[in-house]
Amino acid sequence: MYRKYFDPLDYNLSADFRLTKLSDLKGRGCKVPREVLHRLLEGLQTADKNGYGDGQHHQGILPESKPTPVVGIGLDSCVIPIRHGGLFLVQSTAFFYPLVDDPFVMGKIACANVLSDVYAMGAVEVDNMLMLLSTSNKMTDKERDAIMPLILQGFKECAEEAGTSVQGGQTVINPWLIVGGVATAVCTQNEIIIPENAIVGDVLVLTKPLGTQVAVNAHQWLENPDRWNRIKSVISEDDVRKAYQRAMNSMARLNKIGALLMHKYNAHACTDVTGFGLLGHAQNLAKHQKHDVSFVIHNLPIIAKMATISKACGNAFGLLQGTSAETSGGLLVVLPREQAAAYCKDIQAQEGYQAWIIGVVEKGGRTAKIIDKPRIIEVPAKDTEGELW
Amino acid sequence: MYRKYFDPLDYNLSADFRLTKLSDLKGRGCKVPREVLHRLLEGLQTADKNGYGDGQHHQGILPESKPTPVVGIGLDSCVIPIRHGGLFLVQSTAFFYPLVDDPFVMGKIACANVLSDVYAMGAVEVDNMLMLLSTSNKMTDKERDAIMPLILQGFKECAEEAGTSVQGGQTVINPWLIVGGVATAVCTQNEIIIPENAIVGDVLVLTKPLGTQVAVNAHQWLENPDRWNRIKSVISEDDVRKAYQRAMNSMARLNKIGALLMHKYNAHACTDVTGFGLLGHAQNLAKHQKHDVSFVIHNLPIIAKMATISKACGNAFGLLQGTSAETSGGLLVVLPREQAAAYCKDIQAQEGYQAWIIGVVEKGGRTAKIIDKPRIIEVPAKDTEGELW
Repeated sequence: MYRKYFDPLDYNLSADFRLTKLSDLKGRGCKVPREVLHRLLEGLQTADKNGYGDGQHHQGILPESKPTPVVGIGLDSCVIPIRHGGLFLVQSTAFFYPLVDDPFVMGKIACANVLSDVYAMGAVEVDNMLMLLSTSNKMTDKERDAIMPLILQGFKECAEEAGTSVQGGQTVINPWLIVGGVATAVCTQNEIIIPENAIVGDVLVLTKPLGTQVAVNAHQWLENPDRWNRIKSVISEDDVRKAYQRAMNSMARLNKIGALLMHKYNAHACTDVTGFGLLGHAQNLAKHQKHDVSFVIHNLPIIAKMATISKACGNAFGLLQGTSAETSGGLLVVLPREQAAAYCKDIQAQEGYQAWIIGVVEKGGRTAKIIDKPRIIEVPAKDTEGELW
Repeated sequence: MYRKYFDPLDYNLSADFRLTKLSDLKGRGCKVPREVLHRLLEGLQTADKNGYGDGQHHQGILPESKPTPVVGIGLDSCVIPIRHGGLFLVQSTAFFYPLVDDPFVMGKIACANVLSDVYAMGAVEVDNMLMLLSTSNKMTDKERDAIMPLILQGFKECAEEAGTSVQGGQTVINPWLIVGGVATAVCTQNEIIIPENAIVGDVLVLTKPLGTQVAVNAHQWLENPDRWNRIKSVISEDDVRKAYQRAMNSMARLNKIGALLMHKYNAHACTDVTGFGLLGHAQNLAKHQKHDVSFVIHNLPIIAKMATISKACGNAFGLLQGTSAETSGGLLVVLPREQAAAYCKDIQAQEGYQAWIIGVVEKGGRTAKIIDKPRIIEVPAKDTEGELW
């Protein structure tokens, strides 16, 4: 179940080569502050469009009257009616910097992350992917030639696992290593779930645990005595490595089954949890609802021990406040109350992963909040020897 | 006809703010060397695909047998059969760094550049664009807030001019300012010209003059006494500024009319001229032909005075060798001999811009070359007071 750590020596690279050193962000967000982005994007707004979504992936849904009215809003992907046969174009793009040191896994994560935005709209048949890449001008030629093919391979394998393929892209040179992509699905209307139909009484389901950013950072601190000393009293090195492996596994996992099952269990709305954290994305989803609802989150499923680290760091990550960035996080799905348990069970049956009912939809003003003392769900609840989850 | 120079003072920025300083490339190519890229992309190859195109935009054409056989190859855009109604997805992505100092014009150029790849396949109805952006962490907040909206605005206006719109994208932080995008068209087969049907006797037409990179560099040298001293004996400051304006105008111009007219005049193949220069792209196009042909280029239309600069620099740019990088360059179209003049005339009539017959298709081994002493065509042939072209 565990993946062997990436060893630079296996590729004749210096033992201290770290992919994550190829940007100066070191696990911190690469995101332009949300309010800055919203201000920027005002310039792209047109009168007939309601918004640019979560600010991170600023896709919009074009509420045009051709060929079928999509009265819509911006969320994770754009949904655009095209000229042909009542079809819609569902597209998203995302690119960022290395946050794990294994190049192959990094490629998988980048691919899963961009696909996730399309899955969040219920679209599961992706027609094409493009890959966005830059090599870093801080890499030696030898490093580049060893590392870049592994990233490509990871991205490609993940795309194939998703039933699609990578048929294009661009590669440039940059100070930081960039990896990302574009996912495109051409869909009929019934293949898309416009995420705006939450009603009072619905429940919120989350399909992956939180805490990826904390895990990734804690892992980097193993090589930074100053930082490590601050948390070593609350967690062992082994536990950090295990959390890191779990985070990698989780980020590289596709949200495809979760998206497919949204159709089976009549999901009313969905978003995926990424750069603005659980609460940020929940708020954005709430804002775009047709009805007077608000989302109240009671439970926080978190990769085991990451809540402890977050507390030991004075909540600097905002993990328990729902503001810690996630990469390639789970789907946050709004489901009819009577279907939610079956949805979670079906995911468990098909994928072997847990999903959790984490909150409820109440009457309200299109906002989202986490209750004062949310229940922390450690994921997994206990370790099984030799198993990740 | 001339656009007023972008003045940082108009935006309360420091007088020496230069957009082109937000990368260290300063007009040099941001491209990964072609052979490195080809090696990298081998990892993405699948047995049923012929290639990844020009290496710069590594789009492929999937020669699947569904729903209509597209026996194809990789060029500027990918062309992928989709599940619905015999339709094809034509897509391309490109992103790079500032090469002119006017943010609005830079936005237009980035947009025209990515659209050009789709136009090169004959597809002119673009359904959607995504925008890829990064702010530079070397910008102050004030610079960012002044500059980024202008880039967005330029990109958006260019997309609107092309009859499409920008419905998504992503913005991150990077050491260098990144601007680029994704263009997507869903087309019927007869809207696409698979660029593989050149026959002996055809001629080559180019729709924009060469020399954009030389012009952009020469303009930067106005502020670099060392470099300026090397060329000031062969060109005046005024001529450099004029060439720079011409280059900006040319790079921001859409290749849409040229693409539309390819259908009217039965073009046999086409590519657009960008990072690998005229010869690089001609060679790539030649390589992908069905018949035993080669391309021989006799004429080089070049922005006025840029050939002189290139010679004064000891041909360091490779302009006369056809290897000087272009950004958002013209279409290189293979046309039946009897149609080529009418194609050029029609462009002139509709757009007011010249196009040129620059070479011929001969029997050969799918290569391309420029003859020993090509004729240099100065564009425009002479100055008209107050006019660019």
